[in-house]
Amino acid sequence: MVDKAKRHGIKLRPHFKTHQSHDIGRLFRKEGVTAITVSSVKMAQYFAEDGWDEITIAFPVNLRKIESLNELASKVTLNILVSSQETPTLLASGLKHPVNVYIEIDCGSNRSGFRYDDIETIQKTKESIIESELLNFIGYYSHAGHTYDARSKDEINVIANKAFNDFTSIKKIDGDDVEFCWGDTPSCSVVDTFEGVSALSPGNFVFYDVMQTQIGSCEFKDIAVALCCPVVAKKNNELEVCVHGGAIHFSKDSIVKDGQAIFGIPVANDTWEPLTDAYVRAISQEHGIVKLTTHDHKRYEVGDVMYILPIHSCLTAEAIGSYLTLEGRKVEHMSKKSRD
Amino acid sequence: MVDKAKRHGIKLRPHFKTHQSHDIGRLFRKEGVTAITVSSVKMAQYFAEDGWDEITIAFPVNLRKIESLNELASKVTLNILVSSQETPTLLASGLKHPVNVYIEIDCGSNRSGFRYDDIETIQKTKESIIESELLNFIGYYSHAGHTYDARSKDEINVIANKAFNDFTSIKKIDGDDVEFCWGDTPSCSVVDTFEGVSALSPGNFVFYDVMQTQIGSCEFKDIAVALCCPVVAKKNNELEVCVHGGAIHFSKDSIVKDGQAIFGIPVANDTWEPLTDAYVRAISQEHGIVKLTTHDHKRYEVGDVMYILPIHSCLTAEAIGSYLTLEGRKVEHMSKKSRD
Repeated sequence: MVDKAKRHGIKLRPHFKTHQSHDIGRLFRKEGVTAITVSSVKMAQYFAEDGWDEITIAFPVNLRKIESLNELASKVTLNILVSSQETPTLLASGLKHPVNVYIEIDCGSNRSGFRYDDIETIQKTKESIIESELLNFIGYYSHAGHTYDARSKDEINVIANKAFNDFTSIKKIDGDDVEFCWGDTPSCSVVDTFEGVSALSPGNFVFYDVMQTQIGSCEFKDIAVALCCPVVAKKNNELEVCVHGGAIHFSKDSIVKDGQAIFGIPVANDTWEPLTDAYVRAISQEHGIVKLTTHDHKRYEVGDVMYILPIHSCLTAEAIGSYLTLEGRKVEHMSKKSRD
Repeated sequence: MVDKAKRHGIKLRPHFKTHQSHDIGRLFRKEGVTAITVSSVKMAQYFAEDGWDEITIAFPVNLRKIESLNELASKVTLNILVSSQETPTLLASGLKHPVNVYIEIDCGSNRSGFRYDDIETIQKTKESIIESELLNFIGYYSHAGHTYDARSKDEINVIANKAFNDFTSIKKIDGDDVEFCWGDTPSCSVVDTFEGVSALSPGNFVFYDVMQTQIGSCEFKDIAVALCCPVVAKKNNELEVCVHGGAIHFSKDSIVKDGQAIFGIPVANDTWEPLTDAYVRAISQEHGIVKLTTHDHKRYEVGDVMYILPIHSCLTAEAIGSYLTLEGRKVEHMSKKSRD
């Protein structure tokens, strides 16, 4: 992703919400990355502690966190998102330090931000940002989350191109002199023209996951995290094992495969190749029920561990709150959990 | 639930996986409860620290935790679940202290345990438990998780009655001299005959949640936890607000209501009455998008907080990892998280 951004002459502001790790953040720093994106005030504080000094909180600014925002803004270059017309005035009344402001734009994801074609409200909001001495308007931010509806590279391209065009249509207000920051893993992985966009902030690509293989962003071999689950029971009348790996470990995202909701895909412990026709059929709070072929059902015994690729790595990493490398080295996660 | 168990002359072994809290556990102790149920070794350790000395880990015993199990068994009366035929022998080889053993029975939930009608395997497993000096066979445990498929009290009764009959049919092996422990919130809430069952271990009832109202276990007024979410953005072209309350806070269980998947139900902050026709339409990692009526959309402003009843309180409590009472008193959760 670093190379891709360089090739296109675009600034990379990688989203650190997926890994939430000082250690993994430092790998980005080694590649020359200087600005990062996070999704909460707490995460911004955590990465500021590790020396990151240009941080975007890519979430509608939380006015109830004004004290923490002031503290952060006194230390680092803080970029925030304004996603409501009333926010700039409310924000300005509590701010003590300058912050940079993106206006958040909704290009079809239907989550947060102003609709790209609601030019009147966007302009009014921009005016109230500019009116405030401590708010420094720097441009527009958009997350095209609806690329997650794609099921092929072609579909990603179709959705992303439309969203790009809608996003950059705002240039009729602002010309080219402000930033247009764009972030979602499917389009940043697949699209190869970023005409009009000046910064990218994808996050999930650091690990990828099963969902991203289904969307078309990556291959199985690109997935860089697995949940290591103890096998706790083996059924004798079904080709299934029960693992300690449930909703509190995976979270509960699923994908539909062959008409069946699945919650993870087991891989061989040595090669990380998906086991043939194997999947997590059901999860409850602590249990995962894994369907296997006759061949693999024979191979796994109670007391073994099974590696399972998560459907949504961001949520699984957050739920587990710690990592081990394959060499057994601990990699820090913000929440510093010690999991059973 | 305490009264109900007393009335039926059944031992209550409440499941503490939902609240995971010393403070809430002590409320049960005040009601005379002396034995508890948990879902992991770590949770057993946590409650042993607070003086609980009869603990069932209602999860297929994890052989990789043998050291922790030994430590626990040296301090408290530890009851574990055997859910595979090979487990007793493997377990016995590492045990240093006596533990009590339930055989886990699957009465239709299709999760873990021996099928109730697989008498041959159940008997063989029982024999290998009895052969081991440190394994003390105490009876049978079953969680009828398929009561969660019910959508009315009548349906709960139908599913539970069938499962009860299947479970207690094992008495043809064992007569009445061992324990039959039964745990799931829908049936423990609704059923009023527990013929043949000697202990109950429901958990979710301590808080209930939106899913339990849909199943038929409770009413909205019985729900005892809400997620307190800051309103961070308000749309001007949709009757929606964006709150800081996403998949890492709620987890990601949903129910289908009027053909629409929903992820939570907002309530009035004072009465906890559900807001009319309001629901969480979508969640991503940090965002919750809440649909409101015109009336309520006018009332909520950016910077306000909205109380939202979770779909599945067990997962939401685990994801948040701390509580506040309405009086602002902190209530401990095992994970002792400090949430943004």
